[in-house]
Amino acid sequence: MSTTTRRVAEAEARAMLRALELAGLGVRGANPLVGAVLLAPDGTVLGEGHHRGAGTPHAEPAALADAGDRGHDPRGGTMVVTLEPCNHTGRTGPCSEALISAGVARVVFAADDVNGPAAGGASRLRAAGVGCVGGVEAEASKHLNERWTASVVAGRPFVTLKSAQSLDGRVAAVDGSSQWITGPEARADGHRLRALADAVLVGSGTVRDDDPRLTARGGASGEEPAAGSGPALRVAMGLTPVPSEAAIRGAGFVHLPTRDVPAALDELFARGVRHLLVEGGPRIAAAFLRAGVVDELVSYVAPVVLGDGAPAFPDLGIDSLAAAPRWSLDDAGGPAVRRLGADVRLHLRPPPPGEQAEPVPVSDAGRPDPR
Amino acid sequence: MSTTTRRVAEAEARAMLRALELAGLGVRGANPLVGAVLLAPDGTVLGEGHHRGAGTPHAEPAALADAGDRGHDPRGGTMVVTLEPCNHTGRTGPCSEALISAGVARVVFAADDVNGPAAGGASRLRAAGVGCVGGVEAEASKHLNERWTASVVAGRPFVTLKSAQSLDGRVAAVDGSSQWITGPEARADGHRLRALADAVLVGSGTVRDDDPRLTARGGASGEEPAAGSGPALRVAMGLTPVPSEAAIRGAGFVHLPTRDVPAALDELFARGVRHLLVEGGPRIAAAFLRAGVVDELVSYVAPVVLGDGAPAFPDLGIDSLAAAPRWSLDDAGGPAVRRLGADVRLHLRPPPPGEQAEPVPVSDAGRPDPR
Repeated sequence: MSTTTRRVAEAEARAMLRALELAGLGVRGANPLVGAVLLAPDGTVLGEGHHRGAGTPHAEPAALADAGDRGHDPRGGTMVVTLEPCNHTGRTGPCSEALISAGVARVVFAADDVNGPAAGGASRLRAAGVGCVGGVEAEASKHLNERWTASVVAGRPFVTLKSAQSLDGRVAAVDGSSQWITGPEARADGHRLRALADAVLVGSGTVRDDDPRLTARGGASGEEPAAGSGPALRVAMGLTPVPSEAAIRGAGFVHLPTRDVPAALDELFARGVRHLLVEGGPRIAAAFLRAGVVDELVSYVAPVVLGDGAPAFPDLGIDSLAAAPRWSLDDAGGPAVRRLGADVRLHLRPPPPGEQAEPVPVSDAGRPDPR
Repeated sequence: MSTTTRRVAEAEARAMLRALELAGLGVRGANPLVGAVLLAPDGTVLGEGHHRGAGTPHAEPAALADAGDRGHDPRGGTMVVTLEPCNHTGRTGPCSEALISAGVARVVFAADDVNGPAAGGASRLRAAGVGCVGGVEAEASKHLNERWTASVVAGRPFVTLKSAQSLDGRVAAVDGSSQWITGPEARADGHRLRALADAVLVGSGTVRDDDPRLTARGGASGEEPAAGSGPALRVAMGLTPVPSEAAIRGAGFVHLPTRDVPAALDELFARGVRHLLVEGGPRIAAAFLRAGVVDELVSYVAPVVLGDGAPAFPDLGIDSLAAAPRWSLDDAGGPAVRRLGADVRLHLRPPPPGEQAEPVPVSDAGRPDPR
């Protein structure tokens, strides 16, 4: 290998690590997290990009645009990207065509695209004479998107569960009072979550008790969605009738009179929902957790101690600590742990599918290690 | 007021704000949080200091030492400090004498010292011809130490409550398994808390069930106490007998066979305990919370969801959200919200004594604002 070839190979390896870092800046949801770095033929970085969520440019066009903004010519360059470029006209055009038009000479990607309608980008690029290498850092890219991949493979929406609770895990006090456990900053953040999703779902009992609107109103931060914007669909799930005067009603309202989580997800997927935000109440939250379909959890924790009251996640059927799934702090989309006014926001991802809970450690004597 | 006098006055005002900031770097416990800034006669900063916890130098000697390290002469200078200098030989000598010996000409302090044995510093300084001005930013200083002041006035130890729980507020699963909810980094941090306190207390039921040692072993961080170091006293509280072979026994062990929190605190105060760490179990934690004597709460939250099991703080007698005390994130001693390995550590202070819980907000229509 010549010195130049080695230098370029090293630049591509560095670019892939950087692209993975960029991917992690994106927001989980209907689309996978993807990052991209455009290199000149000599390995110089020309542009960087990542996908910021459904309806915004994919990572490769974002990196091409960044290179353009910097006054760089992409022709003959190498696009290093964490996912096989798409070959699909969705809310944006196919990335394969964008790369061909831009005159990119080579594409290095990490994971294959498993999303049926979008796959096939590498074949299209090769047919157009663009050199294509896949599988570089594929495991890291797959790890970043394993829950998204699982939802695509299963043909169901990506599910975000949102919860607002006291420090001791209560969503309401003994008398049922629950407004407001968290402060205005946390609630505004919750409204931002709504604006990102295709649908927001609550239990029909919650509709009866709290009469939520489920719109995405503006809040304290400057990054608010426009007033009145919101998810395409507002869903009440469960057997409780939805009153005719309920605030959730109107265009985009759906009542799914079922307690069956997979059936509800099938119905919503058929209606085009690719990202579902589940907001509770606790029985609905627990049903989605039990079904193993929660792909991320956003938990707003208020520094209030209630001692008693409705638990955030009742009846999960977990008997021992060893059997409890270990979630992990997830920095995709921003720091996993954030202060929001007086409250704390945790962003968590579940353990990888099939991963066992950790066994309880025991001391040499075979009994739990005394504290 | 001459330009020079105004400049010096402004320097003193700035120095007091800086001293308050420095005070907040300290660690809560047996002593108050105090910060100090030494100024030259022209208002130049000569040195800074803060009190780092029981057994370490007070803020004023720390600022004098810092000035010395920087090669500055304290003579004729002004000490700006957030608490009246002490007049008491405790674990360190009286600050009043240190300031007089150092030739400091003027002392500006915020809050009066309410601690009987240590008070009187200002009188002593004035008697020695040192100019003394008190009450500058006194409210901010009092706010910083209001819980410490309350404990001193009540003649009881400052109480730190430590808790390790699942995201949903459980300290054990349904089968009783609780080791380990949190990971090694959180446990090591808990051992550091032990090393700072004069005494560590658990319920006698916890002694029977878990057989804790309550020593302060070293952990993952570099800032560990020496191996084998620990609190002076290990306390079991409650009516359950402590087995003769219990690991908690040995020099420094006390059993307080009572469920009465004030009585236990009286007894520990009489034994010289000025900082008590309460570690649980949940019934003990709740008893201290109900008694209103918890001065800070350190909560380790593991990203595991149990759904059921022993609650962290049972039976607080709080019926409504409006009646629940609102704690607040406390940055004294370091960021209030920290990641420790896979877990999150929250450092909280209770609402000021006598402060009401926030009323439940209602909409214009007089009913809870719908979400």
